[in-house]
This record gives sequence, C-alpha cells and structure tokens, in this order.
Amino acid sequence: MIQSILQEKKRLVESRLQELLQTKEPAHRTLYDAMNYSLLAGGKRIRPALFLMGLDLFRVPSAPYIDAACAIECVHTYSLIHDDLPQMDNDDYRRGKLTNHKVYGAGMATMAGDGLLTYAFELLTGLPAAAPEIRCRLIMLLAKAAGPEGMVGGQAQDIEAEGRLLTPAELRTLDRCKTGCLLCAPLDMAAAIAEAGDIEAAELHEYGIHLGQLFQITDDLLDAGGTLEEMGKNPGQDAVMHKATYVSLAGADGARRLAEEEANLAREALAPLGDEAKPFRELAAWLLHRTK
Amino acid sequence: MIQSILQEKKRLVESRLQELLQTKEPAHRTLYDAMNYSLLAGGKRIRPALFLMGLDLFRVPSAPYIDAACAIECVHTYSLIHDDLPQMDNDDYRRGKLTNHKVYGAGMATMAGDGLLTYAFELLTGLPAAAPEIRCRLIMLLAKAAGPEGMVGGQAQDIEAEGRLLTPAELRTLDRCKTGCLLCAPLDMAAAIAEAGDIEAAELHEYGIHLGQLFQITDDLLDAGGTLEEMGKNPGQDAVMHKATYVSLAGADGARRLAEEEANLAREALAPLGDEAKPFRELAAWLLHRTK
Repeated sequence: MIQSILQEKKRLVESRLQELLQTKEPAHRTLYDAMNYSLLAGGKRIRPALFLMGLDLFRVPSAPYIDAACAIECVHTYSLIHDDLPQMDNDDYRRGKLTNHKVYGAGMATMAGDGLLTYAFELLTGLPAAAPEIRCRLIMLLAKAAGPEGMVGGQAQDIEAEGRLLTPAELRTLDRCKTGCLLCAPLDMAAAIAEAGDIEAAELHEYGIHLGQLFQITDDLLDAGGTLEEMGKNPGQDAVMHKATYVSLAGADGARRLAEEEANLAREALAPLGDEAKPFRELAAWLLHRTK
Repeated sequence: MIQSILQEKKRLVESRLQELLQTKEPAHRTLYDAMNYSLLAGGKRIRPALFLMGLDLFRVPSAPYIDAACAIECVHTYSLIHDDLPQMDNDDYRRGKLTNHKVYGAGMATMAGDGLLTYAFELLTGLPAAAPEIRCRLIMLLAKAAGPEGMVGGQAQDIEAEGRLLTPAELRTLDRCKTGCLLCAPLDMAAAIAEAGDIEAAELHEYGIHLGQLFQITDDLLDAGGTLEEMGKNPGQDAVMHKATYVSLAGADGARRLAEEEANLAREALAPLGDEAKPFRELAAWLLHRTK
C-alpha cells in the first residue's frame, strides 16, 4: 500500500522535475546539465512525497502544488551535492552513480548546489495556486528548515564532530537538524497550505521529528552493514571517517531497538488523526524495515 | 557627496547586520562565527546602498526595509565565500583579511555560504513593512538575480572559461550575469517596494546593467595594477589563473576607455529621472575613478 503511494508520488514529482530546469542560454548549458544530473538521479523522493501525502491527509488537491514538492526536492538535492564534496564527506558514489563533483568537478558541483537552492525559492514565489501570504509562509518554513538553525546547522555540527566522540544527546541534536528539519518542513508546508489547526499541524510535525530520527538510525545501520549495490553509495564510510553513529554508540542491536522506538513514537504521534493518517504510519513501518 | 551617502548607508546596514546572525544553540557557534566573520568584514556595501538609494529616489522611508538591504548583502557575502573556495578562485585574502576557508576550513566555509544564502530568503519573508505580495516579489527578484540564470550562471561560465580565450561578447555575457545581476536586483527591489512605473523601473535597471559592467572593468583594471593593500586581496590573480579580463582583451588603455563608455551610458540611462537621480550619477563617476 505505502509502496504504491510512494511510487505514485515519485512519478508525479519526477515528471515535473524533468520539465523544470531548462535554459535558453548556451553559456549555462553545463550548469544546467550538472543540476539535472543530480536532480534526476532518482532516489526515494521521500520529502516531496511527505508533502503530497500531507495535502492528501487534509484533502487538498495536490496538482496545483506540485512545484512546491519540486522545490523541496531541489533543496534536498543541493544538500546531497554539497555534502558529497571533497571538503565535506568526499563521496564518490550517490544513488548508484558517480557524485556530481566526480563528473563536473568540485567548482561546478558547488555552483550546481547553489543554483538548485536559489531556484527552489524562486519556484515557491511563482506558485499560482497559493495566496501571497501562503507562499511567503512556505518560503519561510523551507528556509528555516534548510538554514543555519536547521539543516546547514546540522551539517556544520557534523564537520566539527569529525574525529571526536559525540554523546548520544549531541548526536540526536545533530541528526535532528541535519535530517529531521527537512523531513518536518514538507509536513509543515502541507499544513500551512491546508490552513490546518495548530494541534493537527503539531501532531504531524512531531511525527516528522521521529521519522527523521528513524531515517537516520536506519541509514547508519545500512551504512554499517550494506553493500554498494544496496546503498547506491560506498558503505562503511562512517567508520572510515570515524563518525559517531547510532551503530557506533549503541551497537547494531541497540540501534535496531532505537529505530523501533522511534517508529512507535512516530506512529503514536498520529494516533489522534485516525484512519486518514494510515499511509504515514505505514511509511514509518516501511522505513524501519528498509534494506536500502 | 556620494561618498558621504555611501558612508551613511554602510553605517545603517552594518549596524543592523551586527544584530542579525545570533544563535542560542551552542552546537551552531562555529557556523555563526564563520558567517559573521565574512558578513562583518567591511567592504563598500554597494549593493545594499543601491537599494537604499533607490528607496530615497522614490521617496520611500528606508528604515522599515533595512532587513531587505541586509538580505542583499548576505547573498553577496555568500557569493564571495564560495567564489574564494579552493575549487573556485582559491583566494587567500579578501577585504584585507584571510578568506573564510583559510580560517574555518573549506567545509565550514561552504556551509557558511549556504547558511547566508538560505538566511537571506528567510529574512525577506519576515519583512513586516511590506505586504505579502511585495515580499514574494522581492524574493523572486533576488532569487532570479542570484540563481542559475543570474549570478550562479555567471560563476559557472567563469569556471568553464578558465584557460580558454573568451571573445569580448562572451566576457560581457559572463560579467552581466556574474556581477550585473546582483547590482540590478537592489534597484529592481526598490522599484518594486515603491511600486514605481514600468518606465522608471526600466531606466533604473538599465543604469544597473551599465554600473555592473563599469564595476567589473574597473575591478579588472585594479587587479592588473593594484597592490594587496589597495585591493584587500592578492592582485594579479586573473593573470595567474589565465582568466580573460577587459585588460587582457583590450589592454589597460582600452579597458579604461570602455569603463568611461559604461559610466556615460549609466549616467544617460538616468537622465529622464532628473536631479533626484544625482547620487546615482555621482556613484558612476566615483566608481570610474576608484582606486580600490
């Protein structure tokens, strides 16, 4: 069930993403190639799917808001390109393909990331279906989640943490910023469009926080035990980089238990929303048992 | 006259910039230090000054819009940080200080740039004096100017041009994107806030285009003939990087003549705006004769 929902959302998002980044200026061709290389490289499209599922939950037709889903994916893709750079994680593979800088060079990859981030905000200003105050609110929510108090803050903590043993509390703060914020933002954005009540919006946000932790813990488990084929990137990088992970702090069994706890907390956060929220609960279960 | 106007605008902008980027999260301290290091490193603050001068021209009180001026400077500062990175121009000095990555490392500098860019858009969503549709328009104008069809596009062309001889037309397109777009955006944003007529807005935009060319040509002249003390950065880098510049294409005298032409075109663009536009004409003359 959830897998077919995710497939459908992925198809919707990818068909629009393919149309978006086009240029008439020949001098910009390589930049657009570099942006599209990573943007169209596949992936689960979880963040835009969460946004579209949020609109479904509130019974808002999602077609007029597809560009907002794409803006979220542009921000996510930019973060992956910059995260893979030599001065960051220095990864060679992502989603089973060479990383952006391995193909286009580190300078062009930096610009591809910068271009995608900037374009995401431009895209949100042009959302025809949303009133200007809603568009402003969407931009604010996405900028806060992606900015220095959110994802960029988490990435910066990650840089500082290298070679140092983090406490479980520090790791939790780091992952909440780095992964959690950009999983909560799509839910917050859907609630903003639907003008949902504060309580419902808060329940959905709470779900997003636990989903973020669940996502990160299972990512750590996969990195510790996965193969390049399963992961689409070189496994074991966390250990090579001496990064603190849930696996290094709690062991594989401990991390598995933590993941189960987060999946339960995510599901419980949505209990008041009843049957309508079933796909979200299934998503948590699916992430808990994912193998890639 | 223009120098005292620039001084006053610089003081206004810097006093607000100092208040903006604060964090309560100890884990984000280094990131905020890195962002503030470059944001508060001085500089001419030409872009926010152009925005504030634009508001003056249209007789709009500028105090309620100071955060928009700061957002423009955040975007400019981010572009300098990324432009200086090892994979880009690999510069050691900027504004007489070590570049961001020389102090904080390339990873943190990448994040400081990303953080400033994202924060700029957040700042514009919160502009209390502007109606939501104006805020959306400001974000659109800044994102387009800074994005893949604007500044980032110009930077990407710059990367591709390395080691290759550009034609004068190619160099003009490159600089129009790389430097011109972010000099036009403040003028376009001021016109949007003032809800200026199309003709006045277009005259101001035209001025911005020529000011951008003038700025780039004099930058090339300074790079070819300046000292580290005058420039605040290592001079002669363009020649070291084998970059096409107006000096390499037209010689110093030819570049000087081109600069004079652009200064005249900039002044002429504003002729219909009469005496009110005097500071803008003085700014063009001042930039033509600048020594740093």
